Amino acid sequence: MYRIGFIGLGIMGKPMALNLLNAGYSVSIYARRPEMAQQLVHAGAIAYSSAKEIANQVDIIITMVTATADVEEVLLGKMGIIETAKSGTIVIDMSTISANATQKMADKLAKKGIEMLDAPVSGGEQGAITGSLTIMVGGKPEILEKVHPILAILGKQIVHVGGHGAGQIAKACNQVIIAETIIAVDEALRLAKASGVDPAKVREALLGGYANSRILEIHGKRMLENDYKPGFKAGLHRKDMHLALEQAHQVGVDMPAAKYGMQCLDRLVMKGHSDLDSSAIHMIIED
Amino acid sequence: MYRIGFIGLGIMGKPMALNLLNAGYSVSIYARRPEMAQQLVHAGAIAYSSAKEIANQVDIIITMVTATADVEEVLLGKMGIIETAKSGTIVIDMSTISANATQKMADKLAKKGIEMLDAPVSGGEQGAITGSLTIMVGGKPEILEKVHPILAILGKQIVHVGGHGAGQIAKACNQVIIAETIIAVDEALRLAKASGVDPAKVREALLGGYANSRILEIHGKRMLENDYKPGFKAGLHRKDMHLALEQAHQVGVDMPAAKYGMQCLDRLVMKGHSDLDSSAIHMIIED
Repeated sequence: MYRIGFIGLGIMGKPMALNLLNAGYSVSIYARRPEMAQQLVHAGAIAYSSAKEIANQVDIIITMVTATADVEEVLLGKMGIIETAKSGTIVIDMSTISANATQKMADKLAKKGIEMLDAPVSGGEQGAITGSLTIMVGGKPEILEKVHPILAILGKQIVHVGGHGAGQIAKACNQVIIAETIIAVDEALRLAKASGVDPAKVREALLGGYANSRILEIHGKRMLENDYKPGFKAGLHRKDMHLALEQAHQVGVDMPAAKYGMQCLDRLVMKGHSDLDSSAIHMIIED
Repeated sequence: MYRIGFIGLGIMGKPMALNLLNAGYSVSIYARRPEMAQQLVHAGAIAYSSAKEIANQVDIIITMVTATADVEEVLLGKMGIIETAKSGTIVIDMSTISANATQKMADKLAKKGIEMLDAPVSGGEQGAITGSLTIMVGGKPEILEKVHPILAILGKQIVHVGGHGAGQIAKACNQVIIAETIIAVDEALRLAKASGVDPAKVREALLGGYANSRILEIHGKRMLENDYKPGFKAGLHRKDMHLALEQAHQVGVDMPAAKYGMQCLDRLVMKGHSDLDSSAIHMIIED
């Protein structure tokens, strides 16, 4: 049975690591904030004080951190896994980061015989807790095959999208569609309200038809109830949209609606609502 | 049992009138193009040569025509139903037209004791054939109650949204959300493709997650297969978006994403693709 290292024990990483422990895996952990490790140590995890120290104790290293720079530090930094990991080690980066940076990191790791998969997720905290995430995987299919049983503990839908970075591209597409669908629902509900029509009735009429989506169901309800407990935080959605627009810029794709979504998220964050659900843009768009 | 008049026997109206005939109702029809009436006459419909002639033969008149001006002509024109309809007659306008014009028409009809409901639909030709339309109703609830058994033959979801015009507002919201979600899927699939990632794999990875929608399922597939047989024609979607943006303008709501959707539909129609499915905007947007 593979020994697993897990780096990044935030809202997503902690329940994911717990699910691996509960499935009987040996899990070694490193969190920059040691207080995040306590619950996991109680559940049987072994805590280390750097990524580097974990790397030669395990076969597979999962990273679940915030930004591209965090992954680079954990993988390639002075205290990073590249310093000590054995050849044949597999890194699964489940963070949402740059596809380009992912390809470059995979290349650098490959020179030391370390394999990498990018495997960002969607499904949020609930999906992490219940092990029902969607996992979008980039990298070699034979490496995915090896670690599939581990990913199957964390998610219920695992799709191999393509080579290194392809998982991150799929995730970028996911975030773009979610942002734009939130805008679509926002505009429709504002049109209804300003026209003197109950937006709750409009949403009800539209559920089940071609305008239906999980966003109309879940985020549409949040808008109607003015309840923006996340869900998915605006600050993180903004970060992900920035990645998507950077990618679009690099490959020469114009995405006007995504840019408008980004503007709305910018405004929301600048008004101090970074920790609200990203559908809170409905709250701040002036009519 | 109510006697029904049915005016407008196009792609939607014809199968709807047939469903009413098959349910045992007496249906009198008028089509501007008499050749549209033949199949229905064979099925038992009685054909008249104007709306006015039908009006005093029936209790309920359903209109299913294209534009605001068509409804005005059929209801209020010289050969329109207002000339002959008895007090107590109920007009159900199932066309997609202006909410404001609907309110004005309802007022004029009310002076002759004629009741009106606006009851636009979504679900397309398939929904019309199978009697599974979504019907968004504006007008008095007690009038809806009277005609509910008739609408239940045509659709499976019937929602009373509000007063006169509220059904049209809901329909405008429906069309806005559909257009913007098509744009969202378009942008995501173009981002994937330009990034060297198989857009079919991306769509597959996103189905079932928060980015999922009927548009990703159905229209996303059309985009991947480059098969734009409608579905819902771009020319009609453009007409409906025009109504929605006109309404937004009147009530002072800014809808930047809807405006961009309108631009895309404009371009598609100006390139001569009015009869393709509106998701064909994916085909013509230059990267």
